[in-house]
Amino acid sequence: MKIIIVGGVAGGMSAATRLRRLDETAQIIVFERGHYVSFANCGLPYFVGGIIRNRGDLLLQTPQSLGARFALDVRVDTEVVRIDRTAQTVSVRNVLTGDESIEHYDRLVLAAGASARSGATGSTIPTYTLRTVDDVDRITAVLAEAGAASAVVMGGGFIGLEAVENLVHRGVHVTLVQRGPQIFTPLDPEMAAPVLDRVRERGVDVRLNTTVTGTAGAGTVILSDGTTVPADLVIDASGVRPDVTLAEQAGLRIGESGGVWVDGTQATSDPLIFAVGDGVEKMDAVDGSGTLVTMAGLANRHGRSVADSIAGNTEHAAPALGTGILGIFGLTVALVGWSEKRLVAAGRAHRIAHTHPSNHAGYFPGAEGMSIKLLIDAESDAILGAQIVGGAGVDKRIDVLAVAMAAGLGASALTRLELAYAPQYASAKDPINQLGYVADNLAQGTSVNLQWHELEAARAAGAVLVDVRSAEEFAAGSIPGALNVSLDELRARLFELPRVPLIVHCQVGQRGHTAARILTESGFDAQNLDGGYRTWLAGTSSLMASPIAERVLV
Amino acid sequence: MKIIIVGGVAGGMSAATRLRRLDETAQIIVFERGHYVSFANCGLPYFVGGIIRNRGDLLLQTPQSLGARFALDVRVDTEVVRIDRTAQTVSVRNVLTGDESIEHYDRLVLAAGASARSGATGSTIPTYTLRTVDDVDRITAVLAEAGAASAVVMGGGFIGLEAVENLVHRGVHVTLVQRGPQIFTPLDPEMAAPVLDRVRERGVDVRLNTTVTGTAGAGTVILSDGTTVPADLVIDASGVRPDVTLAEQAGLRIGESGGVWVDGTQATSDPLIFAVGDGVEKMDAVDGSGTLVTMAGLANRHGRSVADSIAGNTEHAAPALGTGILGIFGLTVALVGWSEKRLVAAGRAHRIAHTHPSNHAGYFPGAEGMSIKLLIDAESDAILGAQIVGGAGVDKRIDVLAVAMAAGLGASALTRLELAYAPQYASAKDPINQLGYVADNLAQGTSVNLQWHELEAARAAGAVLVDVRSAEEFAAGSIPGALNVSLDELRARLFELPRVPLIVHCQVGQRGHTAARILTESGFDAQNLDGGYRTWLAGTSSLMASPIAERVLV
Repeated sequence: MKIIIVGGVAGGMSAATRLRRLDETAQIIVFERGHYVSFANCGLPYFVGGIIRNRGDLLLQTPQSLGARFALDVRVDTEVVRIDRTAQTVSVRNVLTGDESIEHYDRLVLAAGASARSGATGSTIPTYTLRTVDDVDRITAVLAEAGAASAVVMGGGFIGLEAVENLVHRGVHVTLVQRGPQIFTPLDPEMAAPVLDRVRERGVDVRLNTTVTGTAGAGTVILSDGTTVPADLVIDASGVRPDVTLAEQAGLRIGESGGVWVDGTQATSDPLIFAVGDGVEKMDAVDGSGTLVTMAGLANRHGRSVADSIAGNTEHAAPALGTGILGIFGLTVALVGWSEKRLVAAGRAHRIAHTHPSNHAGYFPGAEGMSIKLLIDAESDAILGAQIVGGAGVDKRIDVLAVAMAAGLGASALTRLELAYAPQYASAKDPINQLGYVADNLAQGTSVNLQWHELEAARAAGAVLVDVRSAEEFAAGSIPGALNVSLDELRARLFELPRVPLIVHCQVGQRGHTAARILTESGFDAQNLDGGYRTWLAGTSSLMASPIAERVLV
Repeated sequence: MKIIIVGGVAGGMSAATRLRRLDETAQIIVFERGHYVSFANCGLPYFVGGIIRNRGDLLLQTPQSLGARFALDVRVDTEVVRIDRTAQTVSVRNVLTGDESIEHYDRLVLAAGASARSGATGSTIPTYTLRTVDDVDRITAVLAEAGAASAVVMGGGFIGLEAVENLVHRGVHVTLVQRGPQIFTPLDPEMAAPVLDRVRERGVDVRLNTTVTGTAGAGTVILSDGTTVPADLVIDASGVRPDVTLAEQAGLRIGESGGVWVDGTQATSDPLIFAVGDGVEKMDAVDGSGTLVTMAGLANRHGRSVADSIAGNTEHAAPALGTGILGIFGLTVALVGWSEKRLVAAGRAHRIAHTHPSNHAGYFPGAEGMSIKLLIDAESDAILGAQIVGGAGVDKRIDVLAVAMAAGLGASALTRLELAYAPQYASAKDPINQLGYVADNLAQGTSVNLQWHELEAARAAGAVLVDVRSAEEFAAGSIPGALNVSLDELRARLFELPRVPLIVHCQVGQRGHTAARILTESGFDAQNLDGGYRTWLAGTSSLMASPIAERVLV
């Protein structure tokens, strides 16, 4: 059997090596249009920042090493330009010489990845994406030449923020230009607010609702608001789109999301042609629709899977959760599944829980805080998504939630997870168990909560806000117009409260829950402001971060 | 409704506070025979070590704070000495005055915990357990008086090793006395070996197969091997047993494990009496038998659950996995479910996978290693248990495995988990995915592995061992009698290999897998030595660590 693989990085190379382990006699050719295979894509920003110091560390394998170990025929600088499905051939071009040749295949695997969705800069300043070893070579060359350099980064997504962090680490003055009102748009606004705070605290000039429109001479970029900012280079991290050129030309089915359509075995609409990686449409775990998830983990996993399919061990891919994680100036930002805004846009009924736990027992030194948001199906109690922002232990909790979600555990079942506890690692009630308790209370109706963005409407309809924190906490900052009755005095001061709908809140939501229980049991109509003062502050600050935002709250 | 709770720490206090949140009018009395409630049991060793500096940090709540917030009637220094089930009363004694009184109950919750299973020391040296605030007050007083102090710790389990670490941290000379041939017996021997190494590296005098038999004057302890060691104090961490005194006296059913029997709602054999915590039998997740799991997480969880049961929101407890974690001199040791020795003893057919991954991408600075052992049901592919020893990221992986196990995911399904990846947090193929790949290969028969303790018998039966590491690795240390043919030369040197059963190995098992595939595909009978040279070394060192051990391997 002769197998041709187009693309020699994550998905393609996983397919190639697994195929060899399953079949010692197959002929396996890998064509890679770039000069490098199996390089560490996700490490590229950190090489720019000098965190990864040795360029060689980015190059995990070479055609030679792959030949010696896996008997693969790896040809770099070689682009596949055409597929002839009837003849079962591909036309390949040596990108250095321009020579073309034809190769027959029994099975073809497309792993062409995604290409940068370039934002138009109208700029003559060197503008690079951050996707390849060549890209980082160019970027580091410009920075080395510029001395005390400056840069504009377009787009505050995963790659954009990693670029920002690494440029700052390298001493570069950075302007982050974001088209919309929020950076890191996979998050909901109140979860992105602390990320924006952190980026600004580290000296980055963040421009929201702004684009790059041109240049004013060397080293100066003009923005859409008419201002100018210094830039020896521009990094374009506006996003990526699936590279489906070959698949389209060959008449393969393209999915609703714009990626190559594949079935659960990674087969395209042509049963002899398979596809994996960033160029391929995945099935969304929340609604079963076609979706794009450009994560290295899925590319590697599906690469192995396609090898099994070709070798006859068919198995079906799991739906994609879209689990992702970002480190940014000491914060960890992680997510899985859908956000509130996506659920709202899709009209999907949901419940929401915000918590602000510590990563481990508070009495053990060094505890770090995090904020968690959980999205829950209002009918089935299924976990629809989660977002976590904080310090140590965020990566652990998103993985636990991703597994629970993949396994179909309900949000209330998080209470039952038996997670490892010692005081330096977790709490006896782990943040995940606590989240389950909140979800369980919502599911049972033991607790009714209100979101930060629902507060104004509720108060306009006559509800009164009661802050159950201590007088000291209240004095240090409070929501305008709230009554302050501390939790420990609440039973004695019930007579002071009006017989109207009450919204209680504390700092993070826990005392608010106890207060709401006391009030409900005492005959009041009480709701708990989800996530407390902290979530409200983050949410309202996200509105103020943008010049076009309206203030929703008093 | 009047509810009496016996025991005011983890399970008892979780029950009390949840009950209040569910019922504002219930009368809730908590009797605690000690002087403190809601203290941080799991923090006690770290206060001895000075990691937790402020004694007040151990005392999370007081009777006063619980009264103010939850309207609980908390009575410390008060022991419940008798239950009269017919009259629905308990007899309580003030431990300071000896006064007795009677209290009626509508519902009774027993949360008496476990008591130390004291090893007989025959010693006149001060000997303490490490279970209460009073214990640590006594221990720290002796240490403060002794100057350059010395201590003997009896028992190398969770508490014993935490005591060892903290005494060393405080500058105390420590002898660890272990009755059997292995410290930390929840692990299998090859997984415990690096723990023993680390403890000895830090200057602890570890005595295996040894007990304390007496004293030879002040400050000297005599051991069962006739030697003497210095000790200003002895910490007895020999283990705990469920405290079932009250339950037994009241004629409540005691389970096969020796803990109080309860049903899934935490009800004892008397429907008005409930029980939770370390004194209670749990249902084992692997075989459904009655088991003891003395972990704070379960006590807290079941405490909340019993409150729901009493309030009429009946739900059934999940079977217990026994997830646990230990920090010891910078190593993290974690486990869930059953060990190999327990499966062997129960005659349960199983598969085993050992891996030695890094916590995150190797090309990102600061990666730390870990060793993982996975136990898999041979018929169903169910996860039966896991053990992990290493640095950063161990706690995350045990939690992911605990969730997968609780959710009933098969070992092969670990391949499909979509875990969060960026190079400073994980690998594109997370250690958990890799473990799934190994399990999947075993399940499919793509890989056949051999355990370190099976090697000698296989070689005695005629198998030949082939080390596929590089010549440099081979020269730096190898298994006696192995042939060295490096993986990258294997295809060219097949003709050198005898046509007998071959056992291949590399450093950690991954190259060995590729080698075994090449050999199998080329017509050889080949097995891969699971976990490679590293697991073999750990296993054989575990045998040599004990004076009574036989050498199983050449």
